[in-house]
Amino acid sequence: MSLLVVGSLALDTIETPFGQVTDALGGSATYFSASACHFHPVQLVGVVGGDFPLDQLDFLAKRGVDLAGLERAEGESFRWSGVYSHDLNNPETRQTRLGVFADFRPRIPDEFRNARWVFLANIDPDLQHEVLDQVRSPRLVACDTMNYWIESKRESLLALLPRVDALFINDSEIRKFTGDHNLVRAARWVQERGPSIVVVKKGEHGAMLFHEDSLFFAPGYPLEDVFDPTGAGDSFAGGFLGYIANVGGTEPATLRRAMIYGSAMGSFAVERFSVERLRAIEPSVIHTRVREFQAMTAFEHALPALV
Amino acid sequence: MSLLVVGSLALDTIETPFGQVTDALGGSATYFSASACHFHPVQLVGVVGGDFPLDQLDFLAKRGVDLAGLERAEGESFRWSGVYSHDLNNPETRQTRLGVFADFRPRIPDEFRNARWVFLANIDPDLQHEVLDQVRSPRLVACDTMNYWIESKRESLLALLPRVDALFINDSEIRKFTGDHNLVRAARWVQERGPSIVVVKKGEHGAMLFHEDSLFFAPGYPLEDVFDPTGAGDSFAGGFLGYIANVGGTEPATLRRAMIYGSAMGSFAVERFSVERLRAIEPSVIHTRVREFQAMTAFEHALPALV
Repeated sequence: MSLLVVGSLALDTIETPFGQVTDALGGSATYFSASACHFHPVQLVGVVGGDFPLDQLDFLAKRGVDLAGLERAEGESFRWSGVYSHDLNNPETRQTRLGVFADFRPRIPDEFRNARWVFLANIDPDLQHEVLDQVRSPRLVACDTMNYWIESKRESLLALLPRVDALFINDSEIRKFTGDHNLVRAARWVQERGPSIVVVKKGEHGAMLFHEDSLFFAPGYPLEDVFDPTGAGDSFAGGFLGYIANVGGTEPATLRRAMIYGSAMGSFAVERFSVERLRAIEPSVIHTRVREFQAMTAFEHALPALV
Repeated sequence: MSLLVVGSLALDTIETPFGQVTDALGGSATYFSASACHFHPVQLVGVVGGDFPLDQLDFLAKRGVDLAGLERAEGESFRWSGVYSHDLNNPETRQTRLGVFADFRPRIPDEFRNARWVFLANIDPDLQHEVLDQVRSPRLVACDTMNYWIESKRESLLALLPRVDALFINDSEIRKFTGDHNLVRAARWVQERGPSIVVVKKGEHGAMLFHEDSLFFAPGYPLEDVFDPTGAGDSFAGGFLGYIANVGGTEPATLRRAMIYGSAMGSFAVERFSVERLRAIEPSVIHTRVREFQAMTAFEHALPALV
């Protein structure tokens, strides 16, 4: 019944209109775990360099994140540096130093290979294939990707689609991937190639769930201050898959709720730098935010007599 | 109990990736009326030139749109010509010929001055003031605007805010108007200056209703083919205010449903050129679309035990 994530652990140096932070805990597997661990134990596979402040991962271990798959390699940890301007959409990357992540080959510990729920965070699709070669019979596999792989590893990504149940992707990415500006047609294009679930993330505009023939919208949580958007997508995925692992199923009603829990966790992630908000969050606060999502979208249907 | 709209009637020449149309029925008052008339009788005030094909308005008259306030002036009708590229967001304006609209001074017929519900479509805010000087005691006044007036008639627009109950505005417009990129803060800025209701229209991303302290999201209807986005905002306003006039109240639950009826009507408007889709639509089709909106946003709240 375990939840496995394979992705990056990074040290982020970030500047936003609200402040800056140096070598802060980041990376897709980190954000995913810091989010999902509120719902279900997590098994993490990734790599860090000798310079990585491992004690910063203690809070994850205490929250049930199994770090047995965390490889410590010789060399420098993955570092990313970026600047967000006032609209907080696309950051300008100042520097990317892959370090030990450049030679990362995911090795899934034997005790992780029976994982029931698998999240392939945004890494080279060739490595995502390698992960799937190692896990035995997951019930649901979800993957994320980015424009860089869509451009440079398109064939590998296309070959991955029949192997995954859910694709998490940004609106601009799915448009590039499919060549179709229309998100409904684009999602169908992806579904025809494998995943029955496509989650299109639209930043402040929320997220869309395409599941078989149905469609569900989750709005973006209306924060007055988005402090640092880094990690929002991975935190969303962590809430989504964490909720599914918690419930133990993928019924349509469960997937809808997973979208809302994902949106809630994404909204928390951006309230502070790094995983600061995620690490401190209480269950009651998560539930309250989910209720707020319901209050923002629920309406009673009443049919007026039309003219 | 009547619903008054003051705005433009135009002849639009439009090119989209799906086709083109010449001198087609357009204008804010036209779209508003073609939408609202499905919910409630409408009183229209506007101006056309001697060249205007008045018989094209017959369908509105047959649907309960009172054209007693339609002025026929000497000269040419308002003409707009634009081209939409593939993303269907901002059209490139090829030509705007104001014609008789340049000298328009709205004269509200005496029998319209008791209007209970008033929509000031996107015209010069000075003229919007003049309309309000003529109506007696409306229960709800809503107004629309655009970047052109935000830049050129800012003081007049600011002076209008305490006189209106609801502002309809695009996301990019409210950001420019308020100088704040954050929509939550921007809407509050507007509310502090008068309107208790602010509707922020976000095109394909739906619309947000700020009403006093509450917030409601309506998603954009996921059309596979947006044929021509012209008039979507005015059709939205027509559904919104038409529904309110139909129900006869502005309770919070009514405003939420008004957002959905508005979204439904906006989604119909863009399925064809001009008002072609709006003129042909049946009540059952409107109700069905509203049910689809509910299906796309409803979720049962269930609290899992969190870790």
